[in-house]
Amino acid sequence: MSHTTHPEINAERLWQRHLDMAKIGATSGGGVHRLALTDEDIEAHLLLVKWAGVHDFSIDLDAIGNMFIRRAGSEPSLPPVASGSHTDTQPFGGRFDGITGVLAAFEALETIHEAGIETRHPLETIVWNNEEGSRFIPACMGSAVYAGVENLEDMLAREDKSGVTMGSCIDKLKNALPQAGTRELGAPIANFIETHIEQGIELETSGNTIGAVTGMQGYRRFTVEVTGEDAHSGTTPRSRRKDAFVTATDITHALRKVLWDDKDEIRYTIGCFEVLPGGISVVPGQVNFTIDLRYHDKDTLDELGDRIPEICKTHAGPCEINISEFIKQDPMNFPENMISGVEKAAARHDFKHQRIYSYAGHDARHAARLCPAGMIFIPCWKGISHNEAERAEPDDIAAAAQVIADMLIDMAV
Amino acid sequence: MSHTTHPEINAERLWQRHLDMAKIGATSGGGVHRLALTDEDIEAHLLLVKWAGVHDFSIDLDAIGNMFIRRAGSEPSLPPVASGSHTDTQPFGGRFDGITGVLAAFEALETIHEAGIETRHPLETIVWNNEEGSRFIPACMGSAVYAGVENLEDMLAREDKSGVTMGSCIDKLKNALPQAGTRELGAPIANFIETHIEQGIELETSGNTIGAVTGMQGYRRFTVEVTGEDAHSGTTPRSRRKDAFVTATDITHALRKVLWDDKDEIRYTIGCFEVLPGGISVVPGQVNFTIDLRYHDKDTLDELGDRIPEICKTHAGPCEINISEFIKQDPMNFPENMISGVEKAAARHDFKHQRIYSYAGHDARHAARLCPAGMIFIPCWKGISHNEAERAEPDDIAAAAQVIADMLIDMAV
Repeated sequence: MSHTTHPEINAERLWQRHLDMAKIGATSGGGVHRLALTDEDIEAHLLLVKWAGVHDFSIDLDAIGNMFIRRAGSEPSLPPVASGSHTDTQPFGGRFDGITGVLAAFEALETIHEAGIETRHPLETIVWNNEEGSRFIPACMGSAVYAGVENLEDMLAREDKSGVTMGSCIDKLKNALPQAGTRELGAPIANFIETHIEQGIELETSGNTIGAVTGMQGYRRFTVEVTGEDAHSGTTPRSRRKDAFVTATDITHALRKVLWDDKDEIRYTIGCFEVLPGGISVVPGQVNFTIDLRYHDKDTLDELGDRIPEICKTHAGPCEINISEFIKQDPMNFPENMISGVEKAAARHDFKHQRIYSYAGHDARHAARLCPAGMIFIPCWKGISHNEAERAEPDDIAAAAQVIADMLIDMAV
Repeated sequence: MSHTTHPEINAERLWQRHLDMAKIGATSGGGVHRLALTDEDIEAHLLLVKWAGVHDFSIDLDAIGNMFIRRAGSEPSLPPVASGSHTDTQPFGGRFDGITGVLAAFEALETIHEAGIETRHPLETIVWNNEEGSRFIPACMGSAVYAGVENLEDMLAREDKSGVTMGSCIDKLKNALPQAGTRELGAPIANFIETHIEQGIELETSGNTIGAVTGMQGYRRFTVEVTGEDAHSGTTPRSRRKDAFVTATDITHALRKVLWDDKDEIRYTIGCFEVLPGGISVVPGQVNFTIDLRYHDKDTLDELGDRIPEICKTHAGPCEINISEFIKQDPMNFPENMISGVEKAAARHDFKHQRIYSYAGHDARHAARLCPAGMIFIPCWKGISHNEAERAEPDDIAAAAQVIADMLIDMAV
């Protein structure tokens, strides 16, 4: 194919839109705090809709709050070729995680539209709801429900820390977008391709711009509740304490012994750890914490994850332990044609590229249940992500949008 | 002395007042949540003032929010003989810690008044402000400022978690008590005797009712800030993490090795432990925690406490450590005449008694800087305290009030 059929994206516009989006939920530390379906996240949706309105792209919402910006195709019965990611961020997160995938998809959509290229399939930019899972558990909620991995009613009832339900937040989003049509959950998609910052250092180290993602490691997540007994820190000797902090840290240390591998491949993280009642002179009677375990090999992940409850109970000491696994995702691989599609588009524009594995979870995991799906990674400064200092370069973002535009055309014409 | 000069206290009234006070800040778990100078704590002050009004006892407040309920003596120039404790509780604390000492003191005051006994010294019930230190740091703030251990201006500026200052709370207390006079900080006190639940199991085990407290162990308290770097839990290998949780728990484990003694005498407690930002899939970049260390021997306490900063720094790993000691109190002993005074009064009423050491800190520590001071302990069910399940028996409380009444008379006539 010639360059005529693959128009150039507008790198300057794309970068400006990153700057505009970064203002919504901006933190004093230079990052973004825009949790799923907060006022800030809804504002980000509205800004996208405003940009989409210039071209009369249609807007649909589904029952779990995913948003679809659509450019019609010449054959209305065909399913859309889609790209996208998410607008929500981690608490005090960065300016690229998620939003880059949305803006690259939208830039591709606009570029194709402005070039007057007719496609048989409709083209879509998808904003998956609640990818981060930091306000509402679990992560990748929107894509999981769309793909039938999670139950709609269950997810709508999920509450944030202040008792607000996901359902009420979606109502708020719908009220803010009265013009939006309705998308059925699970409605067919022809192909899905997602851009994301790597959140690792492989591309930075190799000097490549584009990573054609081959697959994604699996993960298992647990909550552990340790119940002891509040007691006076001055009068209660160790032998009479039921110290939930001591037990909880015995457990997290014991888990290290099993999960800290010499190759440094297993990812074991205690991210939430709440100590109650939280008085200086009170032996804590309650600790609640989460375990995040990730690995690329299914059998090993199964085996290690299955050992966690036993390890917790072995180190319970005088406390009661309540452990539950609230999410389990196997490692997965993307289809070869999507991987090579990324490589082909990158090569066309002389972007240095490589195959790469994803150590993070993304919405494309669930989309891959519905259609051939793939992912593009771009470099991420020092691998720093889920952090206000997160950084990606305008040129790399533009390259990703170009690959997306090429692929949408190749798959949709 | 005959029983005529030592009238009997009203046990039924005293217990009813415990029930009335337990309603103020009552929790569904059967405890009391009445943090210093919250609306609930001020309500507790007002209820006392209402009871005091029946007898025309005068009310004074000092600049740090301590409250003094006074019955005049026949020689106005003499300093008061006082008893009391505190009305504030730990978060979700019990129905006896503090308030028993206040109500026993007030019962003694009323009993003496109703018996028409004239004393040369004025008699006082003191409510020391913010003994628990759970809303405003440090604990025993009111008595510490009164005794000149802490600086008034510094303490008035202390803020709770929502930024409310101690100064503004004291203003609120003063506004609620327009009839109150002003007491000078550090104004002389002739003697001070405080009743408290033991918060240990020594009396329960021995079967004795009254403990004549000989002294109080010392304590040192530290805050430790561990600063690492927020990172993505899926993409960041262990070798590249600056995991503040890993470092903080390395430190708390290392401290165990030094502070867990075979005799089980050293009290080492991590009561507050905050993990930030607190996302399931975020390697925590910040942990803030407190260390509470207590011991009865000054030299050992000095030596162990002095080692803490070094131990923290040795286990810093890739993180930055900021440690500061915010309070240090040496072990102390009460004067022999106050200890034997308790024994004498207990013997007069055939209350089984013993000498006992205090493993908790109390306001009597600071009062002892101003005057001969002492303490009475009564049994505490299973030693459970700083807990909603905290329990003391009506008969034991009555015995304490009787000892207080006797001692006030003996010291004030």
